[in-house]
Amino acid sequence: MAYALWRTGRHREPAAAELFFRREPFGAAFAVGAGLGQALRSLGALRFSAADIAYLRSVLPSTTEDAFFDYLCTVDASEVTVTSVPEGSVVFSRVPLLQVKGPLLVVQLLETTLLCLVSYASLVATNAARFRLLAGPEMKLMELGLRRAQGPDGGLSASKYSYIGGFDYTSNVLAGKLYGIPVRGTVAHSFIMSFRSLEEVQPRVLSPLAGGEPVDLPSLAESWLQRVCELLGTPSDKPNRGELAAFVSYAIAFPQDFQGLLDTYCVMRSGLPNFCAVALALHQLGYRAIGVRLDSGDLIQQSKETRRVLRACGAHFQVPWFGSIPIAVSNDISEQNVEDFIREGSEIDMVGVGTNLVTCPLQPSLGCVYKVNGSPCLKFTEEEEKMTIPGIKAIYRLFDAAGHPFMDLMALEDEPSPSVGQELVVHVLGRRGEATKVRPSAVEPLHRMYLRDGQVCEELPSLQEVRSHAQASLNLLSSVHRRLHDPQPYPVAVTEKLHLLLAELQQASQ
Amino acid sequence: MAYALWRTGRHREPAAAELFFRREPFGAAFAVGAGLGQALRSLGALRFSAADIAYLRSVLPSTTEDAFFDYLCTVDASEVTVTSVPEGSVVFSRVPLLQVKGPLLVVQLLETTLLCLVSYASLVATNAARFRLLAGPEMKLMELGLRRAQGPDGGLSASKYSYIGGFDYTSNVLAGKLYGIPVRGTVAHSFIMSFRSLEEVQPRVLSPLAGGEPVDLPSLAESWLQRVCELLGTPSDKPNRGELAAFVSYAIAFPQDFQGLLDTYCVMRSGLPNFCAVALALHQLGYRAIGVRLDSGDLIQQSKETRRVLRACGAHFQVPWFGSIPIAVSNDISEQNVEDFIREGSEIDMVGVGTNLVTCPLQPSLGCVYKVNGSPCLKFTEEEEKMTIPGIKAIYRLFDAAGHPFMDLMALEDEPSPSVGQELVVHVLGRRGEATKVRPSAVEPLHRMYLRDGQVCEELPSLQEVRSHAQASLNLLSSVHRRLHDPQPYPVAVTEKLHLLLAELQQASQ
Repeated sequence: MAYALWRTGRHREPAAAELFFRREPFGAAFAVGAGLGQALRSLGALRFSAADIAYLRSVLPSTTEDAFFDYLCTVDASEVTVTSVPEGSVVFSRVPLLQVKGPLLVVQLLETTLLCLVSYASLVATNAARFRLLAGPEMKLMELGLRRAQGPDGGLSASKYSYIGGFDYTSNVLAGKLYGIPVRGTVAHSFIMSFRSLEEVQPRVLSPLAGGEPVDLPSLAESWLQRVCELLGTPSDKPNRGELAAFVSYAIAFPQDFQGLLDTYCVMRSGLPNFCAVALALHQLGYRAIGVRLDSGDLIQQSKETRRVLRACGAHFQVPWFGSIPIAVSNDISEQNVEDFIREGSEIDMVGVGTNLVTCPLQPSLGCVYKVNGSPCLKFTEEEEKMTIPGIKAIYRLFDAAGHPFMDLMALEDEPSPSVGQELVVHVLGRRGEATKVRPSAVEPLHRMYLRDGQVCEELPSLQEVRSHAQASLNLLSSVHRRLHDPQPYPVAVTEKLHLLLAELQQASQ
Repeated sequence: MAYALWRTGRHREPAAAELFFRREPFGAAFAVGAGLGQALRSLGALRFSAADIAYLRSVLPSTTEDAFFDYLCTVDASEVTVTSVPEGSVVFSRVPLLQVKGPLLVVQLLETTLLCLVSYASLVATNAARFRLLAGPEMKLMELGLRRAQGPDGGLSASKYSYIGGFDYTSNVLAGKLYGIPVRGTVAHSFIMSFRSLEEVQPRVLSPLAGGEPVDLPSLAESWLQRVCELLGTPSDKPNRGELAAFVSYAIAFPQDFQGLLDTYCVMRSGLPNFCAVALALHQLGYRAIGVRLDSGDLIQQSKETRRVLRACGAHFQVPWFGSIPIAVSNDISEQNVEDFIREGSEIDMVGVGTNLVTCPLQPSLGCVYKVNGSPCLKFTEEEEKMTIPGIKAIYRLFDAAGHPFMDLMALEDEPSPSVGQELVVHVLGRRGEATKVRPSAVEPLHRMYLRDGQVCEELPSLQEVRSHAQASLNLLSSVHRRLHDPQPYPVAVTEKLHLLLAELQQASQ
C-alpha cells in the first residue's frame, strides 16, 4: 500500500492521524494512557536499514520501481509533529491519546507501531491502577508476571506499565536494571524443599549485628523453636526441620533481609513456628526479619492467624515490632481477591500479582484504533460504531468548582479555547445530538506538543514522574467515574461548531 | 535466593527440573508445545554481563560477599543437559515439555526464562492450531495481531508461534524478515478514503502485460463500471468514484497483485462494482486480480453475495477465473466466527485474525510451572492440585493399532522402556490410583536430548519443519481427543513402579 501511495505521488501530502480507543476497558469509565514516551522515542528511530530494504525488495512485486526503495531510504520522522496527553493521564473513549501530523506515507507507516506501543501499555497500566484503587494507598503491590507475559519484552512492558499504574515493586530484575523499578525477590518452594535437616546448614554461624562472637544459628533457632512451640501449644516435633534449615540458611545469607515462605508444608504447624524461631534468633543478634509470604490456601484466614501468632510472640518475648512484620501473599491473585482482602479485614500488607495483572484476562486487549484523516471526511460503514469523527481536533478537559474533571471537549482546531466561568453549548457524544450547557471552573488543553517537525519540544518525564502523574490524575477524578463497579460514564463532548460540521458531512454523504 | 544457595555451598549440587502445565488450555484435551527452540537457544546465551553484575551489586544487601559476584561471572549453561518434546508436538497436562539437569543454582536461575519462553509460545500455537482445526485444511489463515500484542516482541512471538500452529501468513513484516514467514499486506480504509475522484489518479496509464501501448486505466475502468452496473442492475452513479480512483491507483502500482477492500462505503452498491470494473479492466490488459477483502458487517452473507456477483461477471464477460477470486475477511474474527463460516457454507477463502489469536482471550495464560526436584520428595501443600510428582521421569507415548497415540506414560528413569505388543499395568492420573492394563502397538520416547553438558546434540528444526511437525502431530491425534467441544481427556499414566514410589512418599510424609 505504501508503494501505491508513492506511485500515485500522494506520499508527501500533508496528513494527520489520531489514536484513540472506542470503549473504556474492563467495564470502567476510565483508562490510564501509557506507552506514549516509548512511542515518541520510537519515532526518533524511524528508519529503513539496508537489510530492511533488501527484504522488502524480495517480497514486493518485481515491477516495483527502484526509485521507491530510494525514497524509503530517506524516510524518517523529521517532518512529523506529535501532540499527546501526558503519559499517565486518565483518558476516555473517543478522545485521542495521540495526534500525529506529517507526510501521508509516514503517518500511515506509523499506524501499527504506535498502536502496538500504546495499546497494551495503556491496558496494563489501567489494570494496575484498578488493583491500586482496590488495594488502597497503603497496601504494597508487587508485579510477578514475567513468566506469563508474551515473551521477555512483553514481560518488560508489563513491569514498566504496571509500575506506572501504581504497583510498587517488580520481580523482573531486568526491569529493575533497565528502568530503575524497585525489585523484590522472593524465596521459592524449591529452595525450602532442597533442605532436609539442620545438619545440612552450611555455614552455620552468624555474628551479631553490633559485632561480637559468631553464634551457631541452627542451634539458636532450634532452641527458639522449642520456646515458640511451647507458647503456641504445638508439638515441637511437628515443624519440618528441612524447612527450618532452609530458613536458617537464608537468614545467614540475608541477616538483614530475612523473609519466610510459610506454606511449603503447613503454615500453622510448620512454616510459621519455624519462621518465628529464626526471626527471634535473628532478633537476639540484633536483626529484624522483613516479612513472610503465603502462597496457597485461604490467604485471608491464614493472614489473620499469622498476625495473631506474630503478635503473641511479640508480646510474650517482648519484641514490639514482631507483631507488625509485613505479611505478603501470592497465588493467582485477582481483583476480586484484593477486594476481599480489604473487605474481610485481612492482615495482608503486600500482594504479589502475576497472571491477572499482565495478561489482563478480564479484557486482554484495549482495541485502540488509529485513524488517518487527510481531510475532513466521514467514514460511513455498515457498522455505526466504526464511524469516525473527522479532522484534527483541539481537546480540552473541563473542571468543576471542586477541581474534578467533568468533561473532555473536542473542538475544531481553529476555535477559541473555552473560557473559565463562561457558559458553553456542547453536544455530548452518545446522547443523540442533544445540546447541553456547561460552565467550566477551569479549562486545560489536554494535549501537549512533544515533537514538532521531528524536533523534541518537551522533555519526556521520568518513569517516576509518570507514575506520580497517574496517581494524581486518578485522584482528581470524581469517585462516580473512578469507582470500578457501575461507574457513571464520563462525558465526552464536541463543540457546537464541530457538531454542525459533523451533521453537514453526514447529510452530504447520504 | 541465589545468594543464599551459594552461601550454603549448595549451588553446585546436581539438580533437575521439569516444565509442564497442569491443565490443557481452552477446555481442550491437548496443547501444542512451542517455544522450545528459543528456550534452547537462550541457554547458549546464559551469561551475566559486567553491567548485570554491577546492577545486582547495587540491589543486593551490602553484606553480600564479593566471591558471590565472582561466581556469577562464571555462570553459563556448560553443565546443563536438556531433553524436550520436539517443538510442535501435541502435549498434555502433567507431562513435562522440558527436563533440565545441571547445577542447582543454574537450574533455578532458568525457571523464569524458560517459563516465559515456553508458556505464551505454547498457548498461542495451541490457539492457532484451534483456528486451523476449525477452518479445515483449505482456508487460508493470516495473523494480524501486532497491534494487539504486548509490545513489539510480544507481536513477533505471536507471529512466529501462530505460524507454527498452522497459520499461513502474517501481516508483521519484521516477522517475515526475521523468520521467513510469508507476509501478506492489505489495503487500508484510509488509503481508499484519501481519494475523491478519478481525476486524482496519477499516473494514469498501464501497459498490457504482454507489452504494447499503455492504456488510460481510469477511463477503461470507468467504461467497465458502466457495463458492470448494467449487468448488476445498479445505478452507475452509485459507486463511489473516490473508491474507484483508489482501486485504479492501486492497480497501476500492483497490476499483478491487485486486491480490493470492499466495505469502505457500501459493499454491494460501491465496493464490489468498483472492484469488478478495475479487475475486468486489468483482465483486458492481461492481469489477474488476486482477491477482495470484507472488513465489516455480515461477512457470511456478504461473501455469498460477493461470490454471486463475481460469478455473474465471470460468466457474462467470459472470464472463467473471475468467479473464484479469493474472498478474505477480517474484523475481530473469533473461533465462533470461523465455525460459522464453515457451517453456514460461506464463500470465504481467507480469514485474518488478530486480537482473538494473539491475546488468547478465552484463556490468556497457560499456567506452566517449573518444578525443581533435587531428590525425589513430594511437595505437600494445603492445595491438592499443587502436588508434584517427584524426580526425573522417562516419558513414553503409546500408540494403538490405528497409529493414534492413546496414552503418555511416565516411568522412573531407570525402568526399561515399555515393549510393543506386551501388556503393561499402569495407573492413569486422576483416576484415584486404579490400575489399568494396556498393550501398545507402538512406543515412542517422548523426549529428545537437545543439549548435553552445554553441547548441542541435536540440531533444532527449522520453523517450517516445526510447523509441519505440528500438523502431523495433530493429525495423528484421535478425533475424540482433538475435537474442541467436549473432547475426551487424553490419559496420562505412571508405571506401577512410579505409582508405588508415589504411594510410599505420600505415606512417609503423613
